[in-house]
Amino acid sequence: MKEQIHGGDVYRHPEALDFSANMNPLGTPESVIRAAQEGVNKICNYPDVQQLNLKKALSAYEEVPADALICGNGAAELIFMLTLALKPKKAVVLAPTFAEYELALKSVGCRVEQVQLTEEDGFELKSIKEICASLASGAELVCLCNPNNPTGKLMERDLILGILEQCRKNHATLLLDECFNDFIDEPEKYTLKQHLYAYPELFLLKAFTKRYSMAGIRLGYGMCADIKLLEHMRNCVQPWNLSIPAQDAGVAALRETEYLERARLLVSKERLWLKEEMKKLGLKVYDSKANYIFFKGPVDLVEHCLEKQVLIRDCSNYVGLEKGFYRVAVKQHEENERLIEALK
Amino acid sequence: MKEQIHGGDVYRHPEALDFSANMNPLGTPESVIRAAQEGVNKICNYPDVQQLNLKKALSAYEEVPADALICGNGAAELIFMLTLALKPKKAVVLAPTFAEYELALKSVGCRVEQVQLTEEDGFELKSIKEICASLASGAELVCLCNPNNPTGKLMERDLILGILEQCRKNHATLLLDECFNDFIDEPEKYTLKQHLYAYPELFLLKAFTKRYSMAGIRLGYGMCADIKLLEHMRNCVQPWNLSIPAQDAGVAALRETEYLERARLLVSKERLWLKEEMKKLGLKVYDSKANYIFFKGPVDLVEHCLEKQVLIRDCSNYVGLEKGFYRVAVKQHEENERLIEALK
Repeated sequence: MKEQIHGGDVYRHPEALDFSANMNPLGTPESVIRAAQEGVNKICNYPDVQQLNLKKALSAYEEVPADALICGNGAAELIFMLTLALKPKKAVVLAPTFAEYELALKSVGCRVEQVQLTEEDGFELKSIKEICASLASGAELVCLCNPNNPTGKLMERDLILGILEQCRKNHATLLLDECFNDFIDEPEKYTLKQHLYAYPELFLLKAFTKRYSMAGIRLGYGMCADIKLLEHMRNCVQPWNLSIPAQDAGVAALRETEYLERARLLVSKERLWLKEEMKKLGLKVYDSKANYIFFKGPVDLVEHCLEKQVLIRDCSNYVGLEKGFYRVAVKQHEENERLIEALK
Repeated sequence: MKEQIHGGDVYRHPEALDFSANMNPLGTPESVIRAAQEGVNKICNYPDVQQLNLKKALSAYEEVPADALICGNGAAELIFMLTLALKPKKAVVLAPTFAEYELALKSVGCRVEQVQLTEEDGFELKSIKEICASLASGAELVCLCNPNNPTGKLMERDLILGILEQCRKNHATLLLDECFNDFIDEPEKYTLKQHLYAYPELFLLKAFTKRYSMAGIRLGYGMCADIKLLEHMRNCVQPWNLSIPAQDAGVAALRETEYLERARLLVSKERLWLKEEMKKLGLKVYDSKANYIFFKGPVDLVEHCLEKQVLIRDCSNYVGLEKGFYRVAVKQHEENERLIEALK
């Protein structure tokens, strides 16, 4: 049986208010639910293996040609597809970060070097020296998440461009996971999308999951100017990896621009409020820029919150973190009030 | 862009009646549609990574312990997961057969030996000699489909048990795809399920796709007594490979026993009728036992049928087949009449 190592386990805690997964606090748009349900009416057919409608809508939304796009059964599938296509012998990841990079790399027998982000440095990447050293000694893939998960820390664009230059020099690939970029205050200032065509070494990962709160239907995508790499990735999976409801839901979601703007403003406001309230409770709160907040507190906080029917993310199973580190989603105001009550 | 190499491309032929994919002719059960649509209402959550409800229902349905079950985003994902977990250097497949075995094997760099089924032998496997020779010279995986796709030919249980014995002797695995077993006249007489625990070398593949006509939602499963292999397979993919609507649809589908019996009887009757009518048209019809019929006819038959808005499967891209071979699904009587009209 699959071990539950991530947040979002509402199945073992059906009564709890879930702060352990990081969705759009506005919930799934009604139009997305409807499109997916209409898609269900057509499931006697196979899904479109060319994903034409979705690719067309994505291409218009991202202003990136359709042939530079690749879709997956959730962004997580794309991480596995990329590692399968590249089969790197050595790769670099930060620690702590999203666990699936390392799990995917290990599934292809890759040696994973971890660049430890420390509590003293506030879990920020202060220098790219270690990453450069790994690249110089043969690392073929660097995995970065910006803002990072679970810390919510943002890396400056120039820092990432520096890493990208080193990737180029060493014929390595950069997997840059921007799944949470939509919830920061100035997304355009931090995304590396405009550098896609200058750097075919760059693989940009995006998800519908968090942006539109639709984790349960599985839909993610990637952007990359290296068309051959994308073709290779597609050959590593079945042709029908995207269900009909997922493809239809995706097309509907991309029309929800006003919803997304509203969510960003809400997150910005509530993130600030939550941080202040949490600090008042004596918790050590890190300066997250994402739709979740990373903090340090007493070691029994998960159980304490569960007693009050609130589910928070225990981060002690992240590489490089110990007991006492937690992550909570930024939700709507009344929900956030319940969180603060529970944390007391 | 993914090439369309299989049947079921209703997206390029939206007006046509589709005989090119092999679904249950009764269509998706209403209860399955409803369950999937209700599942869509919950997509703001991640899917259950432990798939507990589905596994419980499957375990009861198949009378196999839950820990001997593994689920995939369609049976096709399980083929890739198995090849990823085993990473065989050499494998044996029949030709012609379902193309995804070979594609999955090639994605892990496996050398694929083909056992050619010939027109003279009516595309039947007459001897296991060639398979034994491959196993003796190092093949680590044998892929069989029973009834075979696209021919619909059934292998006797003793023949497969003979191959299984040779797999055991040579420490190889047998992937036995029984996705179409549900549509033959005596499923119990041909399935190898009762030998699961005697042969941990056996991986039995099953799909919801065809059985309940729900290809568009992606759900398949496998059964195997080798629990370690299943664990290894699970580690080769993301934890959230099954969407919420797919898991819920699966639970509902497994309750549809009367529907399945009705479908089997319909297929049995209509298969016979279609074969007779097709023979009257002078087509060379092979003796399929499945819910599809394999035949040989004029080389321009696909275009000819499309003019009459009927989509049939051109089988010339199967390894070992040339232009002039086709496969058609067995559907409901009025639909089958339209097929016969189109074939005229």
